[in-house]
Amino acid sequence: MDNFTFHNPTKMIFGKGRIKEIGKEIGNNNINKVLLLAGGGSIKTNGVYEQVTNSLKENNIEWLESWGVRPNPSLEHANKVSELISANKLEAILAVGGGSVIDEAKSVAAGIYVDNIWDIFEGNAQIEKALPIFTVLTLSATGSEMNSFAVLSNDKEMKKWSFGSPHVYPKVTILDPSVQNSLPWRQTANGGVDSLSHLMEYYFMGLDAEVTFGINESLQRTVIQEIDKLMVNQNNYNARANYTWSSTLALNGISGVAMGGGEWTVHGIEHSLSVMNPEIAHGEGLAVIFPAWIKYVWEVKPEIFRKWAKNVWEADSVEDAIQKMKDKFTSWNAPITLRELGFTKSDFSRIIEITFNYGRVGKIKNLKKEDMFNILDLAY
Amino acid sequence: MDNFTFHNPTKMIFGKGRIKEIGKEIGNNNINKVLLLAGGGSIKTNGVYEQVTNSLKENNIEWLESWGVRPNPSLEHANKVSELISANKLEAILAVGGGSVIDEAKSVAAGIYVDNIWDIFEGNAQIEKALPIFTVLTLSATGSEMNSFAVLSNDKEMKKWSFGSPHVYPKVTILDPSVQNSLPWRQTANGGVDSLSHLMEYYFMGLDAEVTFGINESLQRTVIQEIDKLMVNQNNYNARANYTWSSTLALNGISGVAMGGGEWTVHGIEHSLSVMNPEIAHGEGLAVIFPAWIKYVWEVKPEIFRKWAKNVWEADSVEDAIQKMKDKFTSWNAPITLRELGFTKSDFSRIIEITFNYGRVGKIKNLKKEDMFNILDLAY
Repeated sequence: MDNFTFHNPTKMIFGKGRIKEIGKEIGNNNINKVLLLAGGGSIKTNGVYEQVTNSLKENNIEWLESWGVRPNPSLEHANKVSELISANKLEAILAVGGGSVIDEAKSVAAGIYVDNIWDIFEGNAQIEKALPIFTVLTLSATGSEMNSFAVLSNDKEMKKWSFGSPHVYPKVTILDPSVQNSLPWRQTANGGVDSLSHLMEYYFMGLDAEVTFGINESLQRTVIQEIDKLMVNQNNYNARANYTWSSTLALNGISGVAMGGGEWTVHGIEHSLSVMNPEIAHGEGLAVIFPAWIKYVWEVKPEIFRKWAKNVWEADSVEDAIQKMKDKFTSWNAPITLRELGFTKSDFSRIIEITFNYGRVGKIKNLKKEDMFNILDLAY
Repeated sequence: MDNFTFHNPTKMIFGKGRIKEIGKEIGNNNINKVLLLAGGGSIKTNGVYEQVTNSLKENNIEWLESWGVRPNPSLEHANKVSELISANKLEAILAVGGGSVIDEAKSVAAGIYVDNIWDIFEGNAQIEKALPIFTVLTLSATGSEMNSFAVLSNDKEMKKWSFGSPHVYPKVTILDPSVQNSLPWRQTANGGVDSLSHLMEYYFMGLDAEVTFGINESLQRTVIQEIDKLMVNQNNYNARANYTWSSTLALNGISGVAMGGGEWTVHGIEHSLSVMNPEIAHGEGLAVIFPAWIKYVWEVKPEIFRKWAKNVWEADSVEDAIQKMKDKFTSWNAPITLRELGFTKSDFSRIIEITFNYGRVGKIKNLKKEDMFNILDLAY
């Protein structure tokens, strides 16, 4: 088992009716004036905005608002948010929304202390501090609410890249699963695929951490089972609660302890898809690429993939597990082919180019461009 | 699923050769002078003391030493340590040892700010702050290295009681599994029983947190499997690493999320045994009482105990699982009867009296004195 350091200081406040605690938590950190960062406006229709702002008022926290964080959040918007914070001497960021809003909050919180936000994604700037971040989560998928990572898109350079720093763990996250009942089904399903993908990216590293394998497998099974229940009844609170907490645990560190930092190749390929078409949801791209990647690489670590097939999918072979996974995604109405996402074979070379832009592709199997072509072909 | 708050800020530094990082970690917290708290002296023979003090010297951390923390640490010793810290204006406690040393460190760290340490165990004092605690763990069992609980014995009043406060999470814990290779087998086995017991105390609450059941079951299986491997070869690093991390996770909160705080009745009864005879190791007492308690109460939540029997022990019935557990403990050379611990039936009334001293006994089944007599009889 590899050496590791585990330190996740985020305070998770979980459950029905707890959003009203946000103002007090911010006040407890001696913060008086925050930026409320949000997306397209769904928080105004599901009641979250009202709960948050009432709590801020009751606790005498002043705030400014910045709206319009898009799915696959952009450097351009992050730069505007950064200017707003500086101009108004705001002390913290309160991200109210899903992973995109939280990721943009993290990018700004760290980026505000360096010359250029994008430098931290290129590895050209050292992160020594960040503004405190608070989050109220409204869509469980990315795990960003309890980790130190963020993804941002640089549209001009066609890059969707990530960074990580211990300085951007949210101080406090409030997760009320019941506010996710009103999500369109597609977003719940995509969240499920995303959470499952995070678990698999760690799992397939296949190092000798039995304890992590056990936790990781149990979380994969729970995600599948609870999304299935939500498919039947999206208002099933208990299923929503179990799924959303699993989704947080899928990428808060615990499911990847001593797993060499994870594989993350499928995430890399998916990022290229959504750079080419920002309309593609992250979970959709993952649902398409993951089965193809497994099919192409599993024989480099057959014992690990067979263990996964048996323990997660009760399958007799890896091929059987892949089929079960594809059938499951289809049953959730998720796409499983590049064709469904609107790509043609003529796009492959561009997808490959963007992916290799980032550097080496693949850990357990180092992929050459022709390997990636074959994976895209399997996913077509 | 119940609402919960999860906030575990301890930084866990895990792996071979990492004890030398302790001085730097203490320095990073702006601390210059600490109390090094230790037990009977095994850390001088296994090399841990040398590694710790070299690291303190290299990082210019001054220290005083206090030795002699006993298994089942005592209020009397804690009071002496507290005076030493006050008299020398020490800024933090560095606990080097197993759960007893860490528990005494926590008791002193919080107790030093109130009139009387025992008040915090009686619930007669509010804990508003504590000295910072650092730990170097040398025996994995209690989970104290990454949680907010401590147990202390008040010999005069025949009470072995616990307290919990978010102020006593260790700032940093270093866990180098390889230093546990030199433990007598008995301590490894007792640690395994203790870890398994923590998991079961949460599990049998049986609330509707599927995600926690899954994680908890996987940890139970891992503890059993890795202790079995250590039984074959105590120097198996990978088994030691997987076991020790499982032991931490068994009581750092993650395995008990939304489980109503846990059952803890068997722990309560065991504490009475070791109050009557401090020579009894905590794990030994648990190995004796747990099977009897399960046998006596399982029918109040049959679906939960059957799920446990199937998923942890691959057993067809609860009775079968109890037998498998007893056989496992016996194979680890742990005792499974009160007789083996030296008790006679004439001790029962005293054990019962001490246990009921604490108040209500039992959550999933409220035990009357005659119920407890029956459990002791089953364990006899």
